[in-house]
Amino acid sequence: MSTPKDHPRYKSLMVREHLAEMVDEGLVNPTGLISHGRGEAFDYLMGEKTIAPALAAEKAAAAFLLRARNPIVCMNGNSIALDPKGLMALSEAVPARMEVNIFHRTEERMEALISYMESQGARGVLGREPDARIPGLTSDRALCSKAGVYDSDVILVPIEDGDRAEALIAMGKTVISIDLNPLSRTSKAASVPISDEITRALANITMFVRELKGKDAEIDAVIASYSSKETRRQTIECICDSLMAEFKE
Amino acid sequence: MSTPKDHPRYKSLMVREHLAEMVDEGLVNPTGLISHGRGEAFDYLMGEKTIAPALAAEKAAAAFLLRARNPIVCMNGNSIALDPKGLMALSEAVPARMEVNIFHRTEERMEALISYMESQGARGVLGREPDARIPGLTSDRALCSKAGVYDSDVILVPIEDGDRAEALIAMGKTVISIDLNPLSRTSKAASVPISDEITRALANITMFVRELKGKDAEIDAVIASYSSKETRRQTIECICDSLMAEFKE
Repeated sequence: MSTPKDHPRYKSLMVREHLAEMVDEGLVNPTGLISHGRGEAFDYLMGEKTIAPALAAEKAAAAFLLRARNPIVCMNGNSIALDPKGLMALSEAVPARMEVNIFHRTEERMEALISYMESQGARGVLGREPDARIPGLTSDRALCSKAGVYDSDVILVPIEDGDRAEALIAMGKTVISIDLNPLSRTSKAASVPISDEITRALANITMFVRELKGKDAEIDAVIASYSSKETRRQTIECICDSLMAEFKE
Repeated sequence: MSTPKDHPRYKSLMVREHLAEMVDEGLVNPTGLISHGRGEAFDYLMGEKTIAPALAAEKAAAAFLLRARNPIVCMNGNSIALDPKGLMALSEAVPARMEVNIFHRTEERMEALISYMESQGARGVLGREPDARIPGLTSDRALCSKAGVYDSDVILVPIEDGDRAEALIAMGKTVISIDLNPLSRTSKAASVPISDEITRALANITMFVRELKGKDAEIDAVIASYSSKETRRQTIECICDSLMAEFKE
């Protein structure tokens, strides 16, 4: 079963096996592995690095989080499996509350995810006792906390379902998404779509939060000059350049 | 847990849940779900349909299979989970032998996959008793049958690992890959890389096998006019056009 160490994509295969283990432990839904693979494809197309338009979006995300009245960092199975420390570091830096919010909801998995975050040192993670619903969504994926997702004005959603991203926008929130696919419904709907791998994205947003904190004029300037459409266009141009590179002399 | 029927991507979510069930049954390795997601991303970029360069590659694949001395249709967990009937129909049409060949090899999973194919009506599936090794590969992924993979001259590999595709090419074989990612090491190494979803690809190759059978001059012409590099270039152009579409007036 073990992956040979001489495989050229050993590191990427190791992340995959970690996620598969998290499925065994009940933290990640099996279909979360498929989402990861979809993201991997786009990461590959962007050279597995933070491209310039993603960095600009990460700076804008930091500005919006600092400007917020009630910012919230959401997390689901994949994001908790991939970067629990990164999620905590960002929510401490802003500061923002954390809420677990999952698509395939069971009480067992909610408890497992929140307990896992607590075992990593997180405190005050919302999600155990939902007391509100996101309007316009059927099924349990609408459930959320009033003090968290429901009342937030700026919300960071890593690896979010498109349906829910659109519903959050319809509530009037500023939605910051981390989704490697710049064409996904989530990326198209989001106020600040970030197409970057989650550990890189969280580290960069946290860095910008620390850099911008207290600098109101700079925060205003970052927000004023940001365009989600322009950022997505540049992201797609980067992907096309990388796709065509081998065919150019 | 159930996926809401009103979700805009219900059909795609259903395929994902089928694959997740196949993981529970031991047919698909959990990391096979990640491969599926990677493929989904590229299928999405190609509009979830067979694009013209893929159809040309599918016709070339049929010609090479008909021209072969010992053609073989390989199959792994994902391909068996996604289209057992399509694999059988193609191998009957050529005719070609079938062999199960998996990356994460265990005797239990090999037996489960071959038994599953037999339960679908397949006969003579190779793979239970490997008696040869693909040169240049470490670990159990080198294991294969002498009468099948090892002695084949034309080999169809759906959703193949890049390392093994390169090793098969190094053995001098004509390798036909089905891999939605036109930039993967498998697609770059293959003699005939097909970037299309597996059920569509198998149906099209089978159609062309029936159409070309016995027409030697036409088979020669198809093989002579085929260029893997040109087909991959056209595939990538199609993807870029689709990526940029929303930004063009």
